[in-house]
Amino acid sequence: MKLWDKGFSTDKKIDHFTVGNDRELDLLLAKYDVIASKAHAQMLGKVGLITSDEADALTKELDKIANCIEDGLFTIENDFEDMHSKIEFLLTEKLGDTGKKIHTARSRNDQVLVAMQLYLKNELSEIKDEAKTLFDLLLDLAEKHKAVLLPGYTHLQIAMPSSFGLWFSAYAESLVDDMHFIHAAYKIADQNPLGSAAGYGSSFPIDRSLTTQEMGFETLKYNVVAAQMGRGKVEKATAFGISSIASTLSKLAMDICLYMSQNFDFIAFPDELTTGSSIMPHKKNPDVFELIRAKCNKIQAVPNQLTLITNNLPSGYHRDLQLVKEVIVPAIQDIKACLELMRFSLKEIQVNTTILDDPKYDYLFSVDTLNELVKNGMPFRDAYKTMGKSIENGTFQPKKDIDHSHEGSLGNLCLKEIRKKMEGNNF
Amino acid sequence: MKLWDKGFSTDKKIDHFTVGNDRELDLLLAKYDVIASKAHAQMLGKVGLITSDEADALTKELDKIANCIEDGLFTIENDFEDMHSKIEFLLTEKLGDTGKKIHTARSRNDQVLVAMQLYLKNELSEIKDEAKTLFDLLLDLAEKHKAVLLPGYTHLQIAMPSSFGLWFSAYAESLVDDMHFIHAAYKIADQNPLGSAAGYGSSFPIDRSLTTQEMGFETLKYNVVAAQMGRGKVEKATAFGISSIASTLSKLAMDICLYMSQNFDFIAFPDELTTGSSIMPHKKNPDVFELIRAKCNKIQAVPNQLTLITNNLPSGYHRDLQLVKEVIVPAIQDIKACLELMRFSLKEIQVNTTILDDPKYDYLFSVDTLNELVKNGMPFRDAYKTMGKSIENGTFQPKKDIDHSHEGSLGNLCLKEIRKKMEGNNF
Amino acid sequence: MKLWDKGFSTDKKIDHFTVGNDRELDLLLAKYDVIASKAHAQMLGKVGLITSDEADALTKELDKIANCIEDGLFTIENDFEDMHSKIEFLLTEKLGDTGKKIHTARSRNDQVLVAMQLYLKNELSEIKDEAKTLFDLLLDLAEKHKAVLLPGYTHLQIAMPSSFGLWFSAYAESLVDDMHFIHAAYKIADQNPLGSAAGYGSSFPIDRSLTTQEMGFETLKYNVVAAQMGRGKVEKATAFGISSIASTLSKLAMDICLYMSQNFDFIAFPDELTTGSSIMPHKKNPDVFELIRAKCNKIQAVPNQLTLITNNLPSGYHRDLQLVKEVIVPAIQDIKACLELMRFSLKEIQVNTTILDDPKYDYLFSVDTLNELVKNGMPFRDAYKTMGKSIENGTFQPKKDIDHSHEGSLGNLCLKEIRKKMEGNNF
Amino acid sequence: MKLWDKGFSTDKKIDHFTVGNDRELDLLLAKYDVIASKAHAQMLGKVGLITSDEADALTKELDKIANCIEDGLFTIENDFEDMHSKIEFLLTEKLGDTGKKIHTARSRNDQVLVAMQLYLKNELSEIKDEAKTLFDLLLDLAEKHKAVLLPGYTHLQIAMPSSFGLWFSAYAESLVDDMHFIHAAYKIADQNPLGSAAGYGSSFPIDRSLTTQEMGFETLKYNVVAAQMGRGKVEKATAFGISSIASTLSKLAMDICLYMSQNFDFIAFPDELTTGSSIMPHKKNPDVFELIRAKCNKIQAVPNQLTLITNNLPSGYHRDLQLVKEVIVPAIQDIKACLELMRFSLKEIQVNTTILDDPKYDYLFSVDTLNELVKNGMPFRDAYKTMGKSIENGTFQPKKDIDHSHEGSLGNLCLKEIRKKMEGNNF
Repeated sequence: MKLWDKGFSTDKKIDHFTVGNDRELDLLLAKYDVIASKAHAQMLGKVGLITSDEADALTKELDKIANCIEDGLFTIENDFEDMHSKIEFLLTEKLGDTGKKIHTARSRNDQVLVAMQLYLKNELSEIKDEAKTLFDLLLDLAEKHKAVLLPGYTHLQIAMPSSFGLWFSAYAESLVDDMHFIHAAYKIADQNPLGSAAGYGSSFPIDRSLTTQEMGFETLKYNVVAAQMGRGKVEKATAFGISSIASTLSKLAMDICLYMSQNFDFIAFPDELTTGSSIMPHKKNPDVFELIRAKCNKIQAVPNQLTLITNNLPSGYHRDLQLVKEVIVPAIQDIKACLELMRFSLKEIQVNTTILDDPKYDYLFSVDTLNELVKNGMPFRDAYKTMGKSIENGTFQPKKDIDHSHEGSLGNLCLKEIRKKMEGNNF
Repeated sequence: MKLWDKGFSTDKKIDHFTVGNDRELDLLLAKYDVIASKAHAQMLGKVGLITSDEADALTKELDKIANCIEDGLFTIENDFEDMHSKIEFLLTEKLGDTGKKIHTARSRNDQVLVAMQLYLKNELSEIKDEAKTLFDLLLDLAEKHKAVLLPGYTHLQIAMPSSFGLWFSAYAESLVDDMHFIHAAYKIADQNPLGSAAGYGSSFPIDRSLTTQEMGFETLKYNVVAAQMGRGKVEKATAFGISSIASTLSKLAMDICLYMSQNFDFIAFPDELTTGSSIMPHKKNPDVFELIRAKCNKIQAVPNQLTLITNNLPSGYHRDLQLVKEVIVPAIQDIKACLELMRFSLKEIQVNTTILDDPKYDYLFSVDTLNELVKNGMPFRDAYKTMGKSIENGTFQPKKDIDHSHEGSLGNLCLKEIRKKMEGNNF
Repeated sequence: MKLWDKGFSTDKKIDHFTVGNDRELDLLLAKYDVIASKAHAQMLGKVGLITSDEADALTKELDKIANCIEDGLFTIENDFEDMHSKIEFLLTEKLGDTGKKIHTARSRNDQVLVAMQLYLKNELSEIKDEAKTLFDLLLDLAEKHKAVLLPGYTHLQIAMPSSFGLWFSAYAESLVDDMHFIHAAYKIADQNPLGSAAGYGSSFPIDRSLTTQEMGFETLKYNVVAAQMGRGKVEKATAFGISSIASTLSKLAMDICLYMSQNFDFIAFPDELTTGSSIMPHKKNPDVFELIRAKCNKIQAVPNQLTLITNNLPSGYHRDLQLVKEVIVPAIQDIKACLELMRFSLKEIQVNTTILDDPKYDYLFSVDTLNELVKNGMPFRDAYKTMGKSIENGTFQPKKDIDHSHEGSLGNLCLKEIRKKMEGNNF
Repeated sequence: MKLWDKGFSTDKKIDHFTVGNDRELDLLLAKYDVIASKAHAQMLGKVGLITSDEADALTKELDKIANCIEDGLFTIENDFEDMHSKIEFLLTEKLGDTGKKIHTARSRNDQVLVAMQLYLKNELSEIKDEAKTLFDLLLDLAEKHKAVLLPGYTHLQIAMPSSFGLWFSAYAESLVDDMHFIHAAYKIADQNPLGSAAGYGSSFPIDRSLTTQEMGFETLKYNVVAAQMGRGKVEKATAFGISSIASTLSKLAMDICLYMSQNFDFIAFPDELTTGSSIMPHKKNPDVFELIRAKCNKIQAVPNQLTLITNNLPSGYHRDLQLVKEVIVPAIQDIKACLELMRFSLKEIQVNTTILDDPKYDYLFSVDTLNELVKNGMPFRDAYKTMGKSIENGTFQPKKDIDHSHEGSLGNLCLKEIRKKMEGNNF
């Protein structure tokens, strides 16, 4: 059964081409279609477009379908194009004419919109929670290893003393920035599009505020054309948000892969988290982190994928928009897996506490020694020259008892303040 | 004079390759370097790293440089690598050793970071204002032309009645969404990175809260490594924001170009805003809108440009980051020009008030006629079949006195509510 | 069984994260792994690394596996990480120690490389054939409809007379360009990487020229490090090629969707190829072409996806490269489906033969009329003014019997020459 | 003077917005506009659309303009929109009516197309030459340092012995692949579009084969609509080609930056090629290579920029296409600078000849030792276990006198064969 069936038999090949993996993706979204359908049915009852008995009957059947989805028993057979037609079929099978009435004053367009936005709200919220759990771990690790020094690099050249405290909490504070985009995406998703029908509204006297409240949206996407334009736009907003997190995770994974190399040897992980071979026992391949990096880099391509699919289309619905779903849904699953695996693995990190014993890192301390001169009154540029000469003459002695005390420095990590920033970012 | 000069003459070709168009871009940023330098000098005075006389002297000279920039007299000659070295040169020329002391407890790294973030805050704020002005125009046009009907398309096929009121205000409400990303970018930029030095802080007892307050940042980017990681990240956040607006403008421009075609003939613009030729007097080429579309599409490539430049670099500064500036600054100028030109041109739009007189648009009204049947109690699917037959039999009469009354429909645009959303989005 | 198993039980979650959908994709590639394994076994026999009996036994078993794959009976159970471990398992199960010997002088790295390159060669060749079949159809349609005129647009404004002959054959000649990239990708894939082992070769005295000849590669990727670097690079080359075709198909689909709109009404398709609704009988939604457009636009994002995954990785294998497969394989399936569906649908196109009867297209002929003046000796700029006046005065009469005779013009399509170009592009 | 001037004064702001930096870019392209104009003038003379005296006069004046461009004296003042109007102005100034006749049977559209394609042919040829010079250097370095061993990494873990011979020549052989795309782009550019006028040809009996021959194009882009569609497409083809080279250079630069780090210390460069500071004498910042990496990564974003600008535009000229020029021209200049700087710098490379003396690299040889066992008849999997035990027991002795002899291995680099591949790729 196709909603747009005109009595002509459509070639199988076209069917496969046009439906794609929609049925599979819809299994994730069906729950939200039911929530929206319930809100719609109740509203139709309240405004008198259907009777309150009909509304109740629809609600009861939709609850049953919701349970069925919850229990993992909901299926979309090949006879159905998508979840919408399957759910409508179930309602009609049970309720006859009443089942058909669910479709009053809505179209598949706003059904898809509202289900997707409810799904995105839920996923963005879960992603935020996952990110916060990783954030907490990073702060805990920073606290735990705050005294362990690490070379700080510029241009990949040994430059200044850093610490594991700085390194871990840098990624934590970076995640706070990413949350701004997750939040922005959430706000964009948090506007009820239901009632926009095919993108031009309808002549039915529906009450959109009522469904808005019922489904827990913060506000309406008022303009029906704007609501339709949201298709692709909400997904791209989400893509910006997850690609922002992905960028942070990818960089962390890159650091980890580098620091696990024998040429750095800063950190290690238990054998369960690495791969190797018995003839190369030194090899601890960081496969998990390489895959986190790669998946996060792939996720960073998602905004551009969505832009290419939706760009330069004039306003109004186009079938092109169907493809947005198959891009954003797997990307969301991927970022959640990456966040989870990063946390799962990172908590096992083993930190090398004697890195700076290697004399190749002695020059790390030249800037601090220089700064002592400046603190004692010498202009910066002159102190610079003096130090240069002492190093040239071989008279330089690294002063390793460094004392960085300003806010955000390795002696004063401000973890509490960073935590407060993250908490301020709730939604 | 190069800050990193080691006494070796560097080949000219390398100089050109490495400096690029930095001097030109720095003319836009110099103002912010001065603001940050002043805050830094005052802080150095307050914590006693320089005397208060030195702080005052530096402040006075920096004010002079600020005036010079304000008057458009500031230049960066080829002897100087960038604004930072030129400004430092000016201070040292005037103040000798005191001039050199401005460099205490900072490095070029955090100088660049803080100047860029101040610049971005200012530009994001201007972009928000420009967007709001366009938003206001769109709502005014929606109000003015709310009664003029327009065909609504799905699949580029004539589908349902729409209106100029809906069309204009759809883009207004869409701009509200874009503001969430501009706001997110602003918040990310609004964290003081000064004091992070080369990305690992320093042993100087500086007071970063003081410079934060002085420069009007909402908070600090505490962690010095995180502050350094902000390079590229703040710019990409901005890129997400402006590319979000660009997507909206591009779509509007696409609609305009289509609607100006003789095959639609929905709108027109005065001759000053179009190009043509005297032998083809019918031609009104929408060059301005085509260029807005193209520039906005180019802007949408910016996030990916920045990702490619910064991705998979381990933590710590790399010279690669210099290129971020030459990507984001022109993109910011472009989106501002597009916003301004769109507004400048759109206010001259001429609307065709008799579009729907053409009988090819009669079928627009078939859905509304169908809905009448449903309102009178017929189940949707049955009404659908009935209507289909009446059309097949040629007995269909379009009911043109449509009455859409629900929130956000063409009879109830909710312009006030949409305006309130935008206002709620201030920063 | 994992090739890198070290005796530690690996967490299930990590297993799922690291293996992904490799097993499913490998079903498409297994055929090529067997071809390469056979060539490898025979070579090992010839150079004496295994006995010729062992080589024969391996060949015979591999032939059986090849048949099994051919018959669709090959499976990769969850116990196996990928096709390589499954095939090795099958060999060892049957041949014991001899089975294990297949792994002499190769590693999973060059196994993956060679299987992927054989796969890509085959797919690129099929894509070329599909593209040529579409090319032929386009030329046939151009020939068939060469006399039917069409408005030519610039800036989406009515500009000059065009024809269906020009329109169809323009896309044909455009496809010739795309073939250059398909060909370039083929040449890059057509270099044997087998023997590069883990990217650094081996101390075994293998004969790489022999396997090159056996597998039908044109040449070797000699340098073993270069061979390893080919991972990701060959796929991106392929992505450039298919994204070039995708760009052509997408543009054609955009034209089709526009020309099917009631505002153009240039072409139509039978009902089986469109969707609609009984209450809007005028609606012929071009879903198939919209999906071709969208899929082709998504394909155009693939080069960037691959760049993001592989970029800024230092030389040598990284696990990141595994993800390349899950990006390129579906994209190849998609472009083949788009080529096939475009051809399948386009052959049913119905052309409106009376388009230019509509007086709104009269000005199309103003340039030709102008050119008559020029041919009669008037300088272009003066003729331009004269024409302008005649139009202004309302004295302009469109001269519809146009005569374009130069090469490639609507009166002289040069279809034979275009066909010759395509034929010259064989590989 | 604007070609499309209609007597209305156009607002300055729009002028700036619409013209952009076209005048500056056109200084690079003017030479090719003159070449095409000469060919056009001579053809007009031969087919009798102008007299042979007129053709001679135009040719003579165009030669003067060519000299003027050659001498760097050609300018495009703000009164002129672009090179085309300036050149036409110069001709008309000197030749009056005859000057105007150059515009017969062409339009600005095909003028831009043909000038761009001639420019691209020339640049692609220069890029090929630059790439070949770098290729030669890489092979020379490979030959020179072929005996110096290097650790080979997988997963950034120490894995197998490699050599500078392998490393340098790997990038050489990789460049051969890139040449296939440069070649493909060249072939696409090598088709004469002149005569396509505004994209629909003209009624003039021009001889396009004659101009094709005159300008040295291999063939015509026959179909006039296809010729117009080439706008953006030829540039994207070029972008694929240069982004392919950019990917190779970026990876080489990444390796160099890593290998210059104190944690690797494999290579060094003279002070003139690095930056540093006198207080950190160990620091040799690889700024040049970081900028090559960054510029090459930015170049890899160009195909996507062009796709976004041109995608989903229906056929026929749109003003959007103007922006293609400002994207591709700087990218071409950048890749040429990167190729030149890479070669300029790389020839100064200093190679550490004692890398493998460090015992941390001993395990590099474990695989070769294992292979000895296999060569002596032990099945691979068994040898693997035996070796594993010997390492576990601490009885492993690295066998450093490795002997890799197969084609493309470190003992048999096949430089001659690689060179032959590159030579086979001429155009």
